[in-house]
Amino acid sequence: MKSTLTFFILASTTVALAVQPFAAADEPRVAYPDGYRNWVHVKSGVISPAHAQFASIGGFQHIYANPAAMTGYRTRAFPEGSIVAFDWLEMRENDGAFAEGPRRQVDVMVKDTKRFASTGGWGFQRFVKDTTELAATPTPQQCFACHDNLKKDGLILSHYRP
Amino acid sequence: MKSTLTFFILASTTVALAVQPFAAADEPRVAYPDGYRNWVHVKSGVISPAHAQFASIGGFQHIYANPAAMTGYRTRAFPEGSIVAFDWLEMRENDGAFAEGPRRQVDVMVKDTKRFASTGGWGFQRFVKDTTELAATPTPQQCFACHDNLKKDGLILSHYRP
Repeated sequence: MKSTLTFFILASTTVALAVQPFAAADEPRVAYPDGYRNWVHVKSGVISPAHAQFASIGGFQHIYANPAAMTGYRTRAFPEGSIVAFDWLEMRENDGAFAEGPRRQVDVMVKDTKRFASTGGWGFQRFVKDTTELAATPTPQQCFACHDNLKKDGLILSHYRP
Repeated sequence: MKSTLTFFILASTTVALAVQPFAAADEPRVAYPDGYRNWVHVKSGVISPAHAQFASIGGFQHIYANPAAMTGYRTRAFPEGSIVAFDWLEMRENDGAFAEGPRRQVDVMVKDTKRFASTGGWGFQRFVKDTTELAATPTPQQCFACHDNLKKDGLILSHYRP
């Protein structure tokens, strides 16, 4: 059964590749941001239990930037190779004190003008929980639809908190 | 008036130095941790409006560690030169979303076994708000009284959140 399933997946993949030979070029993948926990901590926010969307997005939000992106935070012109990681963590409450919980996801933006020309020069990708697994949604186009409103800030919403 | 006041302060300082010639050696000063916002972000917590002490300590708490201290977070044996900065920020709330506010203070621990022999090998210092001004309290001995209960963890309460 397992080998049959494997064959089916391989066959399906082959068909898909045959039908869409340039799929990889159309939507280039964003790599997991290895080592982002050693990058500069840009700022944080918290979605508390009092927030209407607490069940789905509650907890800590930390933003990290690699050295190229830190140049961008100063100039709002993010150079090629800029990477911003948006780290989502659940939270635990104890008498009004909030502690960090398990990771919900990591959202990544990578600046590569050529590879990601169709989404403003930025690649967008969400990684599931504490893994390198790609989340199916939001899609790069969904991310870009909002970030494209931030042209004067280089498509990045956050600002560095000194 | 200003020059009179300056003279008074200088004179008082001279008297104090004359009376306590070894005061500097007894309580060595901890330097402001220049550049700590570029260090690794260890973890965060939040004291929410639901907390009994919100008025005095409410808001975000971020911990940063220099490279030597990061070795200590892995081994719990903090090497000489380890510096940990505990950054306190007020918070602002908008429909249950918490944003970072002005800085309350920065608490610093510096590992120097010889200089700070009387407080477990760690120097302790609080800096006022967003300045390099030394806070009068808590005193190093007050800090040490609690941190000394954490011997198995190298006198540091926090643990690195991956």
